[in-house]
Amino acid sequence: MNQNNKFKIALLSFAIMGGVMYGQSVVEDFKPGITTQQGKQYPQVNSEGRVRVSIPAPDAKLVQLDIGGKKYDLTKNAEGVWTGESAPQDVGFHYYQLNIDGASVPDPGSLYFYGASRWGSGIEVPSADQDFFALKNVPHGELHQTYYYSKSSDKVRMVYIYTPPGYTKDSNKRYPVLYLQHGMGENETGWGNQGHAGLIMDNLIAEGKAVPFIIVMENSSVNLPRGPRPNPQAAPPAGNAPRPGGGMNFAAEFEKILFNDLIPFVESNYRAIPNAANRAMAGLSMGGMQTRSIVIANPDKFAYVGMFSSGTFVPSEITDLAAFKKNGKLVFMSFGGREGGSARIGDAAEEWTKAGIKGISYISPETAHEWHSWRRSLYQFAPLLFK
Amino acid sequence: MNQNNKFKIALLSFAIMGGVMYGQSVVEDFKPGITTQQGKQYPQVNSEGRVRVSIPAPDAKLVQLDIGGKKYDLTKNAEGVWTGESAPQDVGFHYYQLNIDGASVPDPGSLYFYGASRWGSGIEVPSADQDFFALKNVPHGELHQTYYYSKSSDKVRMVYIYTPPGYTKDSNKRYPVLYLQHGMGENETGWGNQGHAGLIMDNLIAEGKAVPFIIVMENSSVNLPRGPRPNPQAAPPAGNAPRPGGGMNFAAEFEKILFNDLIPFVESNYRAIPNAANRAMAGLSMGGMQTRSIVIANPDKFAYVGMFSSGTFVPSEITDLAAFKKNGKLVFMSFGGREGGSARIGDAAEEWTKAGIKGISYISPETAHEWHSWRRSLYQFAPLLFK
Repeated sequence: MNQNNKFKIALLSFAIMGGVMYGQSVVEDFKPGITTQQGKQYPQVNSEGRVRVSIPAPDAKLVQLDIGGKKYDLTKNAEGVWTGESAPQDVGFHYYQLNIDGASVPDPGSLYFYGASRWGSGIEVPSADQDFFALKNVPHGELHQTYYYSKSSDKVRMVYIYTPPGYTKDSNKRYPVLYLQHGMGENETGWGNQGHAGLIMDNLIAEGKAVPFIIVMENSSVNLPRGPRPNPQAAPPAGNAPRPGGGMNFAAEFEKILFNDLIPFVESNYRAIPNAANRAMAGLSMGGMQTRSIVIANPDKFAYVGMFSSGTFVPSEITDLAAFKKNGKLVFMSFGGREGGSARIGDAAEEWTKAGIKGISYISPETAHEWHSWRRSLYQFAPLLFK
Repeated sequence: MNQNNKFKIALLSFAIMGGVMYGQSVVEDFKPGITTQQGKQYPQVNSEGRVRVSIPAPDAKLVQLDIGGKKYDLTKNAEGVWTGESAPQDVGFHYYQLNIDGASVPDPGSLYFYGASRWGSGIEVPSADQDFFALKNVPHGELHQTYYYSKSSDKVRMVYIYTPPGYTKDSNKRYPVLYLQHGMGENETGWGNQGHAGLIMDNLIAEGKAVPFIIVMENSSVNLPRGPRPNPQAAPPAGNAPRPGGGMNFAAEFEKILFNDLIPFVESNYRAIPNAANRAMAGLSMGGMQTRSIVIANPDKFAYVGMFSSGTFVPSEITDLAAFKKNGKLVFMSFGGREGGSARIGDAAEEWTKAGIKGISYISPETAHEWHSWRRSLYQFAPLLFK
C-alpha cells in the first residue's frame, strides 16, 4: 500500500468516524408521536429512539435539549429556528425540557406530564410491545377525577378512580379494588396519563386476560420527611425499623388518610366489594415502598401486593404472618432490566411461595427506572388479581 | 416661591411620575394562585390583577411576559433571574406565555391549559365572586374521561362527562343531560379545567340551586373549514344560509357525530333520561354558534339552549318553530360586559318569551370574551335547567 492509499484510507476512516461523531448517521425517519400536541410537528422520534426537537428562538445564543441526564446542543438555521436530536433513548416514556440561554422550560410542542415535582414535557419512544396500552376500538372504562373530604388532614383531596367498562351502565355489580401509587416527585395523575393504566386495563379486559376491577390513584406524597430520597436498591428496613427518608415512617401520613378516609370513601361511594380478599395495593418506586410499609403494619387489609422497582419484600418482614396469610394471595415484585435486582426479587418471590403465598417476580427487558417498566409491571400484575 | 423650591417641586413631580411610569406604584401583595404549580413561587398575581412572572435565564438578552395581547419586558437581577409584571388584567382566567430571546414558551411555573390551539400557560386573576367555583367540603360529582367509537368518523374519540354527586353510589336514578361545547382553538378539556364546570355544579347542587344533571363535553372542532374565524359579534346567518367559516355549515361534521354516535353512547352507557325534554345544549363562542346551528337543523331534539358570547338567536331562525315549541323551554344568551351585545341579546330574549319559550339574557360584569364570562354564564344557566 503506497503512501497515497494509506492517506486515502485514513481520510475515509476519519470521515466515517466523523459521520458517527457528528450525528450524520442519524436515521431520517423522525415523526411526531402520541406525546406531541395535536397539530404540532415537533417533538419527533426516529426508529433509533432519538428525540428531535425544534423551536424558533432567533435571538438566542444557545438552545439545548435536556433529556436522560444529558444536554444536547441544537443548531440554528437561517430563519432562527433551532433543531437537534438526542442519542437513542430507551423505549417508553421520558421527561425532558429545553434550555434557552440558561432558562429551563417545557417544549411548547409536547404534551405535559407531572414528574420530577413539576408539570413539564414528556416524550414517548415507540416500543415493540406498545400495543398493550394502545387506544383500540374495545369497550372502555373511565378515569374519574373527583374530590373527597379527608378528616385526617382536614382537606378536600383530589383522587383519580378508574372504573372498568360497563361500570356506569351496570347498576348492581360490585368490583374488587386496587390502590395504585405513583413514585417520588409524581402525583395522582401519573398512572392515568403517562402510565396509561386505563388503556392497559381496557385491553386486558377486552382480551379476557384480567377480571374487571376498580383502581384508586391518590397522591401519597403527604408530609414526606425531608430526609434522603428513599433508594429502591437499598436493602429493605426490617419490620419495625425506621423507614427510608430520615428516620420516620414515610408512609405514616398517607396510611392515616388511606384507612381513615380514602378506603371508606371508595367503599361507600363506589360499588366496591368492601373486604380484604377483594383489596390490592401496589405502587412504583416510592409507592411500592409505601405499599410494603403499609402492608407490614396492616397485614390483614390486602390480599394482593405489588412492588414495581421498589426493592424486595420477604415474609420475615411481617411479624404477624398468620394475619396476612388469612387473605393474602400474591406478592408481586418487578424491576426494569437495566436496574438490576433480578436475582434478589426472584429469591424473595420463592420465599413467599414457600411461605404459602404466591410469589411472582418480573423483569422488564431493556428498560430502567422509568414508566415503561411500570406499565409492563401493571400488565403482568393485573391478570393475577382477584381470581 | 424661590428658584430652589421650584426646583424641589419639579424634582418631586418628576419622581412621582417616574414612580408611576416605571412601575414603582405596583402594590406589593403578589402571591401564587390556583393556577400556579404546587410548590412553585411564580407566577403570582396582586390585588390590582397584575401578573408577575420570574424565571432564571442567566444568558438571555431579552425576556418578556406575553399576556392579553401585550408583551412586558422583564428585568434581570445579579443572579440572572428575570422578573416583571403586566398591567392589571380582568378578573378570571387568561392564557399567557413567556418570550425568551425570541422563543415563545410556557412558563415552567404555571399549570397548563388547552386554548389558542395549544397546551400552554394560564393564570387565574382572583375575582370577588370566585366562591361560586371554589373547591369546598360539599358532596362532589365526578369528571369522567372515557372513549367511545364514532362510526361517523371511524375513530375512537375521547369525551369528558361530568356526573353529579351520588351518581356512582345511587344505582337507579336517571338524570337529564347537558351537551356543553368549548370555543374555537379549545377542546373537550376546557370546561372541566379552566371552566371549573364540575365545581360550579357541585356548589350549585349543594346549595339546592340546581337539579343534578349529567354534562357531556366533546371536541366539536371537527373538520372545520379553513375559512375566516367565526365572529360572535357578527349578525347571525339566516336559518338555512351558509354558516360562518368559509361557506359551509361549520357544525355539520360535529352534528353527525353528536346524533349518530355521542348521544346514543351517552344514553346507552349512562343513566340518562333519553328524551328531548331532558336534553340541553350550550356552548361558548364557536360552541354556542354550533349549538344554534344544530338546534335550527334539529328543532325537536333539545329543550334548553345556551349561547355564551356567541351572538344572538331569534325565533324566526327556526323554520319549524312548532317542532321546537313541543319540548322547548329556554333560550339563554350571554355576553361579557366588555364585549357589548347587551341590547341585542336582551331584545332576542324578549322575542323568545313572546314566542312562548322563555328567553333569558345575561351580561357578565367587567369581563371580556374570556372564561370568567363563561363560568358565570354556566352559573346563571344551570339553575334554569330541567325544572
